[in-house]
Amino acid sequence: MGYYSEHYSQNVKDVLAEIDKALCAVDSESVERFVDAVLKADQVYFVGVGRVLLSLQAICKRLAHLGIKTHYVGEITEPAITEHDLLVVGSGSGGSLFPLGIAKKAHSIGAKIVHIGSNPHSEMKDLCEFMVRIPVRTKNYLEDEIDSIQPMTSLFEQSLLLFGDVVAKMIIDERGLDMKSLWRYHANLE
Amino acid sequence: MGYYSEHYSQNVKDVLAEIDKALCAVDSESVERFVDAVLKADQVYFVGVGRVLLSLQAICKRLAHLGIKTHYVGEITEPAITEHDLLVVGSGSGGSLFPLGIAKKAHSIGAKIVHIGSNPHSEMKDLCEFMVRIPVRTKNYLEDEIDSIQPMTSLFEQSLLLFGDVVAKMIIDERGLDMKSLWRYHANLE
Amino acid sequence: MGYYSEHYSQNVKDVLAEIDKALCAVDSESVERFVDAVLKADQVYFVGVGRVLLSLQAICKRLAHLGIKTHYVGEITEPAITEHDLLVVGSGSGGSLFPLGIAKKAHSIGAKIVHIGSNPHSEMKDLCEFMVRIPVRTKNYLEDEIDSIQPMTSLFEQSLLLFGDVVAKMIIDERGLDMKSLWRYHANLE
Amino acid sequence: MGYYSEHYSQNVKDVLAEIDKALCAVDSESVERFVDAVLKADQVYFVGVGRVLLSLQAICKRLAHLGIKTHYVGEITEPAITEHDLLVVGSGSGGSLFPLGIAKKAHSIGAKIVHIGSNPHSEMKDLCEFMVRIPVRTKNYLEDEIDSIQPMTSLFEQSLLLFGDVVAKMIIDERGLDMKSLWRYHANLE
Repeated sequence: MGYYSEHYSQNVKDVLAEIDKALCAVDSESVERFVDAVLKADQVYFVGVGRVLLSLQAICKRLAHLGIKTHYVGEITEPAITEHDLLVVGSGSGGSLFPLGIAKKAHSIGAKIVHIGSNPHSEMKDLCEFMVRIPVRTKNYLEDEIDSIQPMTSLFEQSLLLFGDVVAKMIIDERGLDMKSLWRYHANLE
Repeated sequence: MGYYSEHYSQNVKDVLAEIDKALCAVDSESVERFVDAVLKADQVYFVGVGRVLLSLQAICKRLAHLGIKTHYVGEITEPAITEHDLLVVGSGSGGSLFPLGIAKKAHSIGAKIVHIGSNPHSEMKDLCEFMVRIPVRTKNYLEDEIDSIQPMTSLFEQSLLLFGDVVAKMIIDERGLDMKSLWRYHANLE
Repeated sequence: MGYYSEHYSQNVKDVLAEIDKALCAVDSESVERFVDAVLKADQVYFVGVGRVLLSLQAICKRLAHLGIKTHYVGEITEPAITEHDLLVVGSGSGGSLFPLGIAKKAHSIGAKIVHIGSNPHSEMKDLCEFMVRIPVRTKNYLEDEIDSIQPMTSLFEQSLLLFGDVVAKMIIDERGLDMKSLWRYHANLE
Repeated sequence: MGYYSEHYSQNVKDVLAEIDKALCAVDSESVERFVDAVLKADQVYFVGVGRVLLSLQAICKRLAHLGIKTHYVGEITEPAITEHDLLVVGSGSGGSLFPLGIAKKAHSIGAKIVHIGSNPHSEMKDLCEFMVRIPVRTKNYLEDEIDSIQPMTSLFEQSLLLFGDVVAKMIIDERGLDMKSLWRYHANLE
């Protein structure tokens, strides 16, 4: 039992320390621009794949609870994007086929694009208005990347979810939203 | 080759004949009431499980293209249902745990409920305003059920999809909708 | 009531006639090759978008019930594809970004690719071993295409689902499968 | 800029402190039992709704990468559960309709059930072999619950994801898994 107890506590500490480092390395100006972009858009779209998509869907759901019109690319009732909308691309490397292809399409339609990722030198650079950089380890091994003891890109996915939840919290505070009054945006069937 | 060719053609014929029989057995008054209920609702919700859910999602998507506000229960950005909304329950037997539980909840909130299914003697009977009955084989073996050469409840799932698509077609015709003008409801990113 | 009754019946008849025409236009040799390819593969992957993806997911689910290892691209627990696997691409036009990109990747890994679609002149041509052509209306307006009274690509999505279900039926018949003995492949929690 | 910068940093700190408190309050014996149960099961199923489901799906995906057979209830190719399998129920209150109904069904089939949640006095108590308690605020307002500055049940969803990722890390360490050798479990098409 001693082994497990220690092993668990140590891992919790290490993982949280990694996330702390990653989130604190985000430029606060990009956070401000991100909040602004979300609040100014008619609708906010999210695109990503794998566990990154799951983090984006969680953000998409929480922001919807605040009365923001959100969608993820691929959802059943996804409407057309327009030049008044924002596309948030979640991709550590910035080079995945699907997010990149969708970003190009959205760009050609005139939608505003923000890239949340780690690698600032990807093709996304020429498509997005600005980048929210969470500088964690990717395959690119940039010098300033935060290393991780965790497998694959867990650290990016975790940081992404928490970044989104912190942004939601900031919007609630800034707007003085009373969560109880927002019941109509929350599913009530389950 | 001869075997396959014949086998394929025969199965196509048999499957389409089953679906034809099933769809023609639907009471046309219930079709009218269904179209009315869909058009009068503020929002239309769909609930089901398995392949039935897939058919409902296809209907949900097509109706959204016509400018109708649709959702399926469980979607990421599902808003609260109200007494001005319609819940469409797809369930052959009418007795599945999840659809039935959701229907009870929606009923308590005051939403209108329609059951599309096969078995008219389920608990759904007391919750729904009316039933669209597609009388195909279920586990209940009612006397007037249409039998199927296909496995499990394929016939119900197929008939459900086509019923929904026929309803979409009827709404387009009735309202004189020009599909080209409805581009804003259709995803344009992929 | 008379109007609705007639309108509904006529639409059912017209839609089923369209599907009949589409499915009968499929070359039976390609059906045989498709059944063979599905049965010989270690695992069968499906890729598509929108309502086409919903039809593919329904096929994916039914074939899994027959003991075939199936996946769709994007599923939570999707394993790596190998050269012993089959990728089934569902795309009317054969030109959609995501299915095409995935097909290129699968091709580079050595997986076998089959395209189920309408347009035989797309880029998919050079990637797939063979095509199952359901020659319904696409944006390409080929001469031999079957026209449709339905909106968008409903006819393709419907025909695709029924094609898959007919193939499932043929596999059951050919292998003499007893559906009751296959319970272990069917979800039992809902 | 000063406002945003401070506001962001403070929220990151506060949110991470909440999660730290929540994860450290988990009984380490229950962590050990959880790792054991996951490793001993033939297959591990996950059930939950909303953002809790998203966290479970992320865990489901990561554990699959370690070679563990995982599924979530509702997935397209979900196979039958048996008495050799484990069902992990994620539910703060332990009282949600769907997870509870599924747990009852799984229990009747003889599957082992573990509840990850906050409220130890729910109906889940009589169904699960043991509980992994993350004692964060629920509607039940138990005395020892950790309060949160975040809306709704964000803290539970975040803690759940990180708990699962820490468990994945512990399994990797304990088994000496070389992540590079596990490529065959990771999707390679996107």
